[in-house]
Amino acid sequence: MKRIGKYTYSFSVPRIVAAASCVGKTEGEGPLASGFDVLNPDDGMGCGSWEHAEAALAKQAVATVLKKAGLRPDDIRMAFAGDLLNQCTASTFGLMSFGFPFAGLFGACSTFALALFMAAAFTDSGAAGFTLAEASSHFCSAEKQFRYPLEYGGQRAPTAQRTVTGAGAAVVGNTGPVAIEKGIVGRIAQLGVKDMANMGAAMAPAAAKTVAAFLDDTSTMPADYDMILTGDLGRIGSELFSELMRSDFGYDVSSVHADCGNMIYDAEKQDVHAGGSGCGCSASVVCSKILNELCAGKLKRVLFAGTGALMSPVTFYQGDVIPAVTHAVLLCSQGRI
Amino acid sequence: MKRIGKYTYSFSVPRIVAAASCVGKTEGEGPLASGFDVLNPDDGMGCGSWEHAEAALAKQAVATVLKKAGLRPDDIRMAFAGDLLNQCTASTFGLMSFGFPFAGLFGACSTFALALFMAAAFTDSGAAGFTLAEASSHFCSAEKQFRYPLEYGGQRAPTAQRTVTGAGAAVVGNTGPVAIEKGIVGRIAQLGVKDMANMGAAMAPAAAKTVAAFLDDTSTMPADYDMILTGDLGRIGSELFSELMRSDFGYDVSSVHADCGNMIYDAEKQDVHAGGSGCGCSASVVCSKILNELCAGKLKRVLFAGTGALMSPVTFYQGDVIPAVTHAVLLCSQGRI
Repeated sequence: MKRIGKYTYSFSVPRIVAAASCVGKTEGEGPLASGFDVLNPDDGMGCGSWEHAEAALAKQAVATVLKKAGLRPDDIRMAFAGDLLNQCTASTFGLMSFGFPFAGLFGACSTFALALFMAAAFTDSGAAGFTLAEASSHFCSAEKQFRYPLEYGGQRAPTAQRTVTGAGAAVVGNTGPVAIEKGIVGRIAQLGVKDMANMGAAMAPAAAKTVAAFLDDTSTMPADYDMILTGDLGRIGSELFSELMRSDFGYDVSSVHADCGNMIYDAEKQDVHAGGSGCGCSASVVCSKILNELCAGKLKRVLFAGTGALMSPVTFYQGDVIPAVTHAVLLCSQGRI
Repeated sequence: MKRIGKYTYSFSVPRIVAAASCVGKTEGEGPLASGFDVLNPDDGMGCGSWEHAEAALAKQAVATVLKKAGLRPDDIRMAFAGDLLNQCTASTFGLMSFGFPFAGLFGACSTFALALFMAAAFTDSGAAGFTLAEASSHFCSAEKQFRYPLEYGGQRAPTAQRTVTGAGAAVVGNTGPVAIEKGIVGRIAQLGVKDMANMGAAMAPAAAKTVAAFLDDTSTMPADYDMILTGDLGRIGSELFSELMRSDFGYDVSSVHADCGNMIYDAEKQDVHAGGSGCGCSASVVCSKILNELCAGKLKRVLFAGTGALMSPVTFYQGDVIPAVTHAVLLCSQGRI
């Protein structure tokens, strides 16, 4: 691991050995369905609570990725995982039966990018061997915790995003078809947005700050990437991100920008307002379509920038701003090994 | 960074450049008062909510440690921080004004040990330069969130621990009087404890698992350390920890075991039941008495094992077990440099 410029780190070793994505019913009816490893027909996952269901989804993603990688839990030297539930209990309860060393992360919807960064850094050190990155979210547990109980049937604002029911997991090691070539840990940003029904706007400044720092540090331009993929800014946040990249940093990302929150649902046919969100959104999209296309050589260089809004219902009720953070990793196709 | 045995990592570079501890009124009346950097007379920190007060405490600890280290925020290449509040908002709101790269951690009361481990690993890589570890907790925000509103005046069980109002922060770099020589990231453990008023019992199995793994990996015995310091098992958990170390792993820790939760309050004079707890307990104790005594050469080798209970009120209400995790770092006096 070496630092390039002020904030960016470059890795020489880490590659993605395998990845797995497990999603719920609505996501399985969306445009990315064919790329997911498991389409669960029941968002309840056969569990007695939404929290248990989310933990089951996290567990399913880890079990699936271990199977795809041909590894046992005991081969994983360090697991980095997180989710949106209070005290990150989906990760704890989902991963505890595997028995590997467990470092809990909190980055809201940026968690999967942070987990990939950490897994890459530890594998790059040569000391850790196989590492694991995992993140999950669940529409029903998130609505219950952050907004209203589903039974209340509250109307959602047009700017609101739908929390993805899904989990993504990747094993990082020193062989594999996709390299994690660089990474950056973000700085917290906020431009005064306080509207919890407009997370895209709250997260866009942090996304622009991190992506611009990465481009500055590496002396590259947006056109040097096949895709600059933000985590889940959704429809509103994506427009703001492009605008901020141009106005504040002088970069035109319009030709290469894509957003996991805009990709996972069909905005015409599915009732998802401003798009998808949640830790499981970027985790499941990156661990399906994106890594599949990198493996196939269809994409060569993807800068994946996970975007997280770091508020809680309590800070919202107390009238605080919504701070946000964006962590990013550069995923590069190396051809199938 | 090299791996020793199965779970332990050894570092060659990282040292603690400076540490700071900031506490509330009750902690400032306890036996460790003289070692803390800031004794706040008002647990409200002049803020309008307990959550804002905890964030202010986190901010105070970071500002104090930067001042002691003679560094500006911009010198910090990576900050690792966490707390007990839902979505870790004390860390986010406390640290956001500093503007350094921010990686959020969740490990409940094990957070400070995990943050020290991460800071050490990144400084050890040579790529990160100065890194920062911080953790906080607040009695009033924790009671409100995990138990009952203070105004309710609920009785607390004799096995319950008191959440420490405090924050600790350390800057890690390549010079300084105390080395972070080794570290271990824990595996989740649970022995079926479901009583949220007896966290010590829930955490003891994880503490024993990690400490025993560290001793196994390094082929050392408890007597090789001046102190094996658990995070906050408190009175009940400490007894169970010693018992488990003997019965399950064959190690007698009785002569070297100490616990931050037993040290921070005067059990005779202060109404704290089974001792202290919370992320800020071990963070403030390690960043005061322990590091002061290591600096002075009074202690030479301290294995600090931060213990965290990974439940939430929701998992408790749903009848789940309380999983726990323990992360540890070996702190060694190198003489003042």
